[in-house]
Amino acid sequence: MDERPIGVFDSGIGGLTVVREMLQRLPDEEILYLGDTARVPYGPRGAATITRFALELARFLCHRDVKALVVACNSMSACAVQAIRSAAPVPVVDVIDPTVREAAGASRSGEIAVIGTVATITSGVYERLLAQLRPEARLVGVPCPLFVPIAEEGLTHHPVARLMAEEYLSGLRGTAVDTLILGCTHYPLLKSVLAETLGPAVALIDSAEPTVRALNHLLDREGLRAPERVREPQHRFCVTDASYKFMEIANRILGGDFSRCVEQVCVEHPVEPLTGRSA
Amino acid sequence: MDERPIGVFDSGIGGLTVVREMLQRLPDEEILYLGDTARVPYGPRGAATITRFALELARFLCHRDVKALVVACNSMSACAVQAIRSAAPVPVVDVIDPTVREAAGASRSGEIAVIGTVATITSGVYERLLAQLRPEARLVGVPCPLFVPIAEEGLTHHPVARLMAEEYLSGLRGTAVDTLILGCTHYPLLKSVLAETLGPAVALIDSAEPTVRALNHLLDREGLRAPERVREPQHRFCVTDASYKFMEIANRILGGDFSRCVEQVCVEHPVEPLTGRSA
Repeated sequence: MDERPIGVFDSGIGGLTVVREMLQRLPDEEILYLGDTARVPYGPRGAATITRFALELARFLCHRDVKALVVACNSMSACAVQAIRSAAPVPVVDVIDPTVREAAGASRSGEIAVIGTVATITSGVYERLLAQLRPEARLVGVPCPLFVPIAEEGLTHHPVARLMAEEYLSGLRGTAVDTLILGCTHYPLLKSVLAETLGPAVALIDSAEPTVRALNHLLDREGLRAPERVREPQHRFCVTDASYKFMEIANRILGGDFSRCVEQVCVEHPVEPLTGRSA
Repeated sequence: MDERPIGVFDSGIGGLTVVREMLQRLPDEEILYLGDTARVPYGPRGAATITRFALELARFLCHRDVKALVVACNSMSACAVQAIRSAAPVPVVDVIDPTVREAAGASRSGEIAVIGTVATITSGVYERLLAQLRPEARLVGVPCPLFVPIAEEGLTHHPVARLMAEEYLSGLRGTAVDTLILGCTHYPLLKSVLAETLGPAVALIDSAEPTVRALNHLLDREGLRAPERVREPQHRFCVTDASYKFMEIANRILGGDFSRCVEQVCVEHPVEPLTGRSA
């Protein structure tokens, strides 16, 4: 039994889709979320920059005494998970490994597509993992660089989302692809437009469910599960910039008012939170 | 006479539209450009974060012994120019003041619109400056948050640019607005789609020309002009992330091959450039 919070981190709001699943499946677990809203998006950056940022975020959370880390960002999971595992004194769950397992089991045709940021797709990590799990399967990677800004701007139901979904995904229609991995934690926010664009023949695989299942196993295996709580866990949401939209979008994703649980912090120079609390 | 370079900085590639004008108008001046490609875009961030980033960039350039600074980014000019002026030991030119003067003189109706990032528009700086210069004039500010990602992704001629221009600007058609300030150094890359959307009744004012004119006056006034060069000036382009597109877009904007003049640097912790040179 371990009462300490689980650290969940992302470049911005995307990781909240994983938090939403945690709130449902692991209601006794306390969450310490960290979104690097001062430097989002990570997807267009190089692997070295993403690794540097990821280690700063992981270090911040470990200083806050988390019992496990969830890398709730595919760009960091793709480019930096080894570096995070080497540096972190606690177990680490990423969003890619559990999701590839899910997709490998779910596809009938063995033709799987993954959409993600440029960093995620060019890393080649999905191909490598799928080749280990199901060597005859084939993976098509499609970078979708404008989806993160569209999601961060709350434009997921605007015609711009449909236009870019058409642009990025129309090439998959009429192929043998029957499974699409949403290879970015922002993309579940675009699920309805993605489903509309691809039609019912393609199943969409969201990272949140398999990731939280993997986390659940890990808590058992390592004896880290929280005791049943008498009072509600005190979740906290840290952001590196008092983004004008973070709380609004977070409340919409999580379905509640978490405004009083938000704290602005600095992860670059000191590891202590800034004195002022805002956002 | 002063042979030292002029430091020009932006969150990413936008400031290159000012560099392009400098190359044409001030061919003897050497340029040291700094684009914070590891943290672009700045526009959705809060003023405190933008000021912190801006001071890091200005400090980096001053350590490289520039003779003047050009803040070639409207978000930094709007939120951080006072802080930069207080901290910098050299004269500073921003992109807002010269452009408002130009627009105030150009508009017949006195109805002027400005488009920009959320940080720029919410700062209210255009209203304040215009009220000093032409008190009876009226300013309409329109935030256009998706234009920077569209420009950074090289989608300036894609239907997504037209769709978002229509979304942001259609409200200005049929009004008395006769002048539109492009309040972000990325927006000249979208000039053709903006002109198409608004029609010939609205004049577009780009910051590059008035800013370089202001810089030209400053070089004279302060005795900082470079001597006529025997050989080409050695321009340098520093980026904080080896962005997969920086050089491609930069060469397109500047009309030449500047690949060998690019250097990846770190502005946060040390002020020295990183040992490896890439991008």
